[in-house]
Amino acid sequence: MAYTDHFSLANLPYGIASCKEHPEKAVATRLHDLVIFLADLPLECAENVKSALTKPTLNDLAAASKSELQQLRGSLKKALEDDSLIKKFGYTVSNVSLHLPISVAGFFDFSCSKDHVQNMEEAIFGKKGMPPSFLHYPVGYTGTSSSIVVSGTKVQRPLGVSMAGGSVSFGPTKAMDYELELAAIIGKPTNLGDSVALEDADDHIFGLVLLNDWSARDIQGFEMKPLGPMNGKSFCTSISPWVVPLEALEPFETVAPAKELAVSSFLSETKEKPSYDIQLEAELVRGEKSTTICKSNVSWMYWTFRDLVAQHTVNGCNLNTGDLLATGTVSGAGDDAHGCLAEMTKGGKVQIELADGSQTTYLQDGDGIRMTAYCGKGVGFGDCTGFITPSRSV
Amino acid sequence: MAYTDHFSLANLPYGIASCKEHPEKAVATRLHDLVIFLADLPLECAENVKSALTKPTLNDLAAASKSELQQLRGSLKKALEDDSLIKKFGYTVSNVSLHLPISVAGFFDFSCSKDHVQNMEEAIFGKKGMPPSFLHYPVGYTGTSSSIVVSGTKVQRPLGVSMAGGSVSFGPTKAMDYELELAAIIGKPTNLGDSVALEDADDHIFGLVLLNDWSARDIQGFEMKPLGPMNGKSFCTSISPWVVPLEALEPFETVAPAKELAVSSFLSETKEKPSYDIQLEAELVRGEKSTTICKSNVSWMYWTFRDLVAQHTVNGCNLNTGDLLATGTVSGAGDDAHGCLAEMTKGGKVQIELADGSQTTYLQDGDGIRMTAYCGKGVGFGDCTGFITPSRSV
Repeated sequence: MAYTDHFSLANLPYGIASCKEHPEKAVATRLHDLVIFLADLPLECAENVKSALTKPTLNDLAAASKSELQQLRGSLKKALEDDSLIKKFGYTVSNVSLHLPISVAGFFDFSCSKDHVQNMEEAIFGKKGMPPSFLHYPVGYTGTSSSIVVSGTKVQRPLGVSMAGGSVSFGPTKAMDYELELAAIIGKPTNLGDSVALEDADDHIFGLVLLNDWSARDIQGFEMKPLGPMNGKSFCTSISPWVVPLEALEPFETVAPAKELAVSSFLSETKEKPSYDIQLEAELVRGEKSTTICKSNVSWMYWTFRDLVAQHTVNGCNLNTGDLLATGTVSGAGDDAHGCLAEMTKGGKVQIELADGSQTTYLQDGDGIRMTAYCGKGVGFGDCTGFITPSRSV
Repeated sequence: MAYTDHFSLANLPYGIASCKEHPEKAVATRLHDLVIFLADLPLECAENVKSALTKPTLNDLAAASKSELQQLRGSLKKALEDDSLIKKFGYTVSNVSLHLPISVAGFFDFSCSKDHVQNMEEAIFGKKGMPPSFLHYPVGYTGTSSSIVVSGTKVQRPLGVSMAGGSVSFGPTKAMDYELELAAIIGKPTNLGDSVALEDADDHIFGLVLLNDWSARDIQGFEMKPLGPMNGKSFCTSISPWVVPLEALEPFETVAPAKELAVSSFLSETKEKPSYDIQLEAELVRGEKSTTICKSNVSWMYWTFRDLVAQHTVNGCNLNTGDLLATGTVSGAGDDAHGCLAEMTKGGKVQIELADGSQTTYLQDGDGIRMTAYCGKGVGFGDCTGFITPSRSV
């Protein structure tokens, strides 16, 4: 069974599941190959947490306080040390449906990876460069939350307007790309006008998910100036079904790259290890064969999840439970660490070889992307997968 | 009483109100100086509409079908022709609290005014120009829905990072601006993967509101490249409390400017009068005095509300009930028709004279912006007002 090693007792992620015996969506966790509905277990937890366990999204649970969530996690771990409970209440993952874990409030996607922005400038303009504000704060854009779907949902090739060779045309994208990302799910909200200090940022993060920011590069390229991406991305974004709580990631805390420029006070980090050592991988699936196209690591990001919370709220913008703050494409310095096809193919100019013997620049109908993230010691994210279906007719 | 002439029997907008006698938020309309809670009236309407009338947002009402809404509007008009009902159920507007009318799902802001984009390029780069895609479709960005507030809510000056004279600094914005806009509120939703044809676009629009897209130009200017605006706008957006239904705007339908370039099939309009003749006005309030700083008109927009719906969904992006599709700043060709201060002051370089004898480029703490929209014949939007409060301390 896939990803068994990602889901040890040290992980205990949260998701929303249903199955024949549990037709109503409810909060579940995964242990090895089993999915366990939390409301089935004898857990010690606050009343609001207990009631959150039967809801069809994780939002109410995410809104619980960190101490309530710690109590739940402790009690859950203890319950799952009892083999008889696992035997009684565990459902094989292949017999369970996994749903969009969160009712997404806002979706904000940032530019955390210096390698990504440099590689993208090279792909587009022919030489490495950086947006003027990149070293000053995590630059971002607001994404579209309505079209966020759970891993496994088909992704329809979008129609749009693009320009090639000076002529403008309307039709299916010819540059269907993926972006390898993680996102923080916000638990504790804030009021409009308030900001979150860097040292309090983790209190607002419920957990992390894998995120694929599907991108139609030709549509995006024509619309970007000056308002940024919109139709090139708003057609679909996929996330993993399992939310890994920050508590499970603590053993993998690590340093972030040193800042190359002094930053504003609100981004001056005092935590020694504000980032995470999380290995990322993306595969392109064509026919029966998979080709690993990227190996990257969260610890390579110039900006951390904590920075995203501080930047997003410094102007008084409020956080809602269910907001997603995503990393942007997480790339690395190596040629095997390009977190999207635009980087890897130099903007669609260089073919890449696939395991089935074919070549490609961007994604064809029927192709899939499977991304995974693994920390080690039995803690990982499983996968986030999507396959491309043909566009509507024009 | 202000704006009495905006709210004749020909208007009958929808809003969310409460007052001493009606402590629970519920659906209301305004007739001249009176606010009337719809659930008080003997109305003929479908069961789902009846139940929507007691909800604390307009979302359930907006999701009703156009024929259900037409029936409600007909029945409401008939009831309000009965003076005894008005006498019995009308509350003076000054004794009523008006609330955010809609639980905003997504917020998408487009660039409909050619004059605005040309004036902004002149303000920033010294000469008029246009984004490359402007004449091909309405270019847009996704805004932040969490920080949308109702008219009358104070607007806190945001903190942020900006660059001036080559040096980067963090602090309160020195370039607090407004943007004069209208927005369509989406009623009927769509499924992910579907698009809305131009001729069906009106079916998805519940009504229009005034919208002020507050903008911190220095923060925005530094962050824009390449991902578009985010922190420069996400701190606050104000909308009017009254949603004017499309039905009330039908007498004011008018032609749109001729297209200067052939557009893609999905934007080829067949309706003769796809736009609206709606006069817009903005005043800057300083101390006791108001200065009219802009007079504009919706009919000057190059792109229409119908175009926004078609463009937003052409890639399969779904609409949700409660989405806002906004026009961007609606400017005109004249010097009295600059819909934001950045245009009017050439990017903060030219002082403008105010009625109290002072000068200004951008907004100072204590200043307010009041925007109004009026169609004629007793149909208008009332106002959308906000006053600037000092920033948090750095």
